[in-house]
Amino acid sequence: MSMDSLQELIRKKKNPTVVGLDPKIELIPKHILAKHIERHGESLMAAAESFFEFNTELIDGLADYIPAVKLQSACYELLGVEGIGVMKRTIDYAKSSGLFVICDVKRNDIDATAKAYSEAYLGSVQVGNTVIEPFGCDACTINVYMGSDSVKPFVETCKRNDKCFFALSKTSNYSSVELQDLLAGDRFVYKIAADLTAYLSRGTEGKYGFSCGGLVVGATYPSDLEKMRELLPSTFFLVPGYGYQGGLPKDVSYAFNKFGHGAVINSSRGIIAAWQKTGMDGTDYVQAARAEAEKMRKDIREFVTIV
Amino acid sequence: MSMDSLQELIRKKKNPTVVGLDPKIELIPKHILAKHIERHGESLMAAAESFFEFNTELIDGLADYIPAVKLQSACYELLGVEGIGVMKRTIDYAKSSGLFVICDVKRNDIDATAKAYSEAYLGSVQVGNTVIEPFGCDACTINVYMGSDSVKPFVETCKRNDKCFFALSKTSNYSSVELQDLLAGDRFVYKIAADLTAYLSRGTEGKYGFSCGGLVVGATYPSDLEKMRELLPSTFFLVPGYGYQGGLPKDVSYAFNKFGHGAVINSSRGIIAAWQKTGMDGTDYVQAARAEAEKMRKDIREFVTIV
Repeated sequence: MSMDSLQELIRKKKNPTVVGLDPKIELIPKHILAKHIERHGESLMAAAESFFEFNTELIDGLADYIPAVKLQSACYELLGVEGIGVMKRTIDYAKSSGLFVICDVKRNDIDATAKAYSEAYLGSVQVGNTVIEPFGCDACTINVYMGSDSVKPFVETCKRNDKCFFALSKTSNYSSVELQDLLAGDRFVYKIAADLTAYLSRGTEGKYGFSCGGLVVGATYPSDLEKMRELLPSTFFLVPGYGYQGGLPKDVSYAFNKFGHGAVINSSRGIIAAWQKTGMDGTDYVQAARAEAEKMRKDIREFVTIV
Repeated sequence: MSMDSLQELIRKKKNPTVVGLDPKIELIPKHILAKHIERHGESLMAAAESFFEFNTELIDGLADYIPAVKLQSACYELLGVEGIGVMKRTIDYAKSSGLFVICDVKRNDIDATAKAYSEAYLGSVQVGNTVIEPFGCDACTINVYMGSDSVKPFVETCKRNDKCFFALSKTSNYSSVELQDLLAGDRFVYKIAADLTAYLSRGTEGKYGFSCGGLVVGATYPSDLEKMRELLPSTFFLVPGYGYQGGLPKDVSYAFNKFGHGAVINSSRGIIAAWQKTGMDGTDYVQAARAEAEKMRKDIREFVTIV
């Protein structure tokens, strides 16, 4: 699906939140992990199946309420081949639940290799005469340190398949300043990365005016977010850093345009691990996640009106 | 294995070449793909099993002669879950053949997520009381655009497990200049990325004097390579861009110190697809790869003496 589809889902649900399905063994309620260890032993399979149960229950509990989920690939890669299997099954499950699916893979390479990555996540591969979608996400994240050779194949794949991507510009972590905030000439490096992405994606704008090449811009640097919103009106933002990392509702409001369009705000741990703060044993994890997602939507909507 | 182990293998075989096992469907001899399509239909499984046969035959034909292989993750991810399964089996096969295994994943993320990536490729995960290595590589590649938050977890994992990594500094592609050659203050961005990696890896030097944090520096910019070799004596270089991309034997010679140590030169397509230039039907692909690997070793050794 394109940026338009994402914006449409956000409008329909009046909710600009993407829930990060970033499972870790220590975030899974004990009763789930115990059940799968009993079935599969202390194995990657047991951990992976726990992730799948955790994810699908969360999707069932949240799908009517949120427009999108984001899967952090590292969480799944940590469980090896079994983890990737569950990542793929989670993508399929989320899509069949009507959600927009972002794979947070931050891939980066050049030319034919970048093309392979773009086809893996947003396109297809041909074996004999048969065309197969390896992962079939709606969007993925990329890193543009290698320059336009690493971005163009994603733009091409998105054009062909009506998909989109988010390139890292200004990330939410403390040390993002070390490279991203270097001043080169009259522009910061993160702005150069942003301009490069916007330039290569021009001409792909849909009815809401956003191109296929979005950007990752962290909630923890709200003044940068405000500046970027003004300078890049055709660019959709994926905003990490809300909640757990310190980003506040007012901070993320700068990511939206005057129609309340153009951004999706990520929360992972704050929602999926909300059960660890309820004082219960984890059997309430879906309700706890739902309550936290409702609170987040309400908090953001105090500052953002989506028309 | 550490950078020391890699240097030791290079010394032993008098060969500083790493062969890129970067299979693509169009690089696989037709008879191999046909056999697996007959068994598994036109499926990801058929393509993945073709890759595995191709890889293992190449490893058998080259293992006595080369110190290391590098697996380009994109090639395997393009075949989805089945592709990752074959990547893991290829890693295991190469290790059991005595080769040093680099996973070219260019991963990048922050804090706990970077830790998950580092443990996935270079460390382990605990399920219950059982400790499991998800991929078990000797080294992997990373991207440091997000700053030290994204590097430190790799240094820590390497220290614990005697492993190593290569961070992108100056890549071999044309558009690497767009971000990497920006001048920020008195240093280029690629040098800042390099210095950051070297700084965070200090104190991990082994008997050859190289730290766990190596760098990717392309053969296609030999003057940068020469400058970097002089400025960073404790940093091991992984050098892409040889052959197919235009890097010459003399160019890569700048990557080595006066002992002929401190670098490994990658060739992928030039070796694994050498059969496409012999005018035969592909049944000679192992011999063609061997001949090309022998030529590459000879060519480099005209400029580099490994003591």
